[in-house]
Amino acid sequence: MKITFITLFPEYFDFFKTHSIIKNAIKEKKIEIELINPRDFVLDKNKQVDDYIYGGGPGMLMLIEPVVKAIEKAKTKDSFIIYTSPKGKKFSQSIAKNFVLSHKDIIIVCGHYEGIDARIKYFIDLEISLGDFILTGGEIAAMAIADAIIRLIPGVINEDSLINESFENDLIENDHYTRPRKFRNLSVPSVLLSGDHKKIENWRKENAIKNTNQFKKNNKK
Amino acid sequence: MKITFITLFPEYFDFFKTHSIIKNAIKEKKIEIELINPRDFVLDKNKQVDDYIYGGGPGMLMLIEPVVKAIEKAKTKDSFIIYTSPKGKKFSQSIAKNFVLSHKDIIIVCGHYEGIDARIKYFIDLEISLGDFILTGGEIAAMAIADAIIRLIPGVINEDSLINESFENDLIENDHYTRPRKFRNLSVPSVLLSGDHKKIENWRKENAIKNTNQFKKNNKK
Repeated sequence: MKITFITLFPEYFDFFKTHSIIKNAIKEKKIEIELINPRDFVLDKNKQVDDYIYGGGPGMLMLIEPVVKAIEKAKTKDSFIIYTSPKGKKFSQSIAKNFVLSHKDIIIVCGHYEGIDARIKYFIDLEISLGDFILTGGEIAAMAIADAIIRLIPGVINEDSLINESFENDLIENDHYTRPRKFRNLSVPSVLLSGDHKKIENWRKENAIKNTNQFKKNNKK
Repeated sequence: MKITFITLFPEYFDFFKTHSIIKNAIKEKKIEIELINPRDFVLDKNKQVDDYIYGGGPGMLMLIEPVVKAIEKAKTKDSFIIYTSPKGKKFSQSIAKNFVLSHKDIIIVCGHYEGIDARIKYFIDLEISLGDFILTGGEIAAMAIADAIIRLIPGVINEDSLINESFENDLIENDHYTRPRKFRNLSVPSVLLSGDHKKIENWRKENAIKNTNQFKKNNKK
């Protein structure tokens, strides 16, 4: 799979693409990451990438032309083009899974400042929102989307880790504990140290249900 | 306001804290950013920060002790301590606003690998989730939360930009256009070039309603 980020700030992705899981996935050729800067497609010598908003209003808007030229540079017949925006379809684990199954070549267009000229909608396949909040730019959202996708590519992380994780079977994951058995006055639930796999399995199931109920309570409208 | 990130990967934040809006906010002392690595609180010479999960299961879990020591290093009497986790309360623009109004000192604890030993819950004030998806670590979620908060701190961005943006008045923002008036066969809506402020205002209102309906349709369960 290939993911191309179209961004005015490619440096944002410097650490993302060079650290543990993603770095290994690149090394093992499970994922290819490309960064394209719309600024490189501006012909005027001031390299202006944004301008005032027609009809008035605060802030600057990214020009359509450099972004579209960047998309056209990246695009192949297999490309699926995402634009990160608070207006879009809300990103979820099932969308991430669907992307891994259905697409080999994803382009993520990152808006910055007040966003991109609205005509961008004619050049993309899907607007995706990370949630009901506003960011200074689309780069962090693009990283989140890419990270959630890449870890689902077969072989990128231990496949067992993908089983029983949150949102699988509509359950939130159970609590996990590691050394030491006692930290200050807090002990690991003794059942987890019992070696009794059946009991451990039951405890985990009950705990996952408890966590799921807590999650629902936390997120009740 | 001060935001402290507790993370095994402080380099993740290198660009975040040195680029445009955040960089200026730091320079103008509107925000202070601190990064603390739990690894620095590990005494054993192998600097081990994670271990196997009690009761069995794939992956590694972050040890509780180095994380708690990092929290205690950062904590003041004003600290509000967040842990990023898919189990938490879903982050939103109204939570971001509430943080800006209510807290001067926020600590964001980033889990990595399979997360942190569940006893972390006794050392935090709130678990926050970015959405119903799984990331390889909490760092991207922490950046998103911090970014959404910092841009709401008075004086960080042009305050006019905060009016009429998405989720204000429960409406998604209207479309914005900039030069050129015609890109390929796509023209800017002529009303926006009319100079008639009343008409422009009406178009924007109708367009915001249209976008809001589209958003609701995109996100219908």
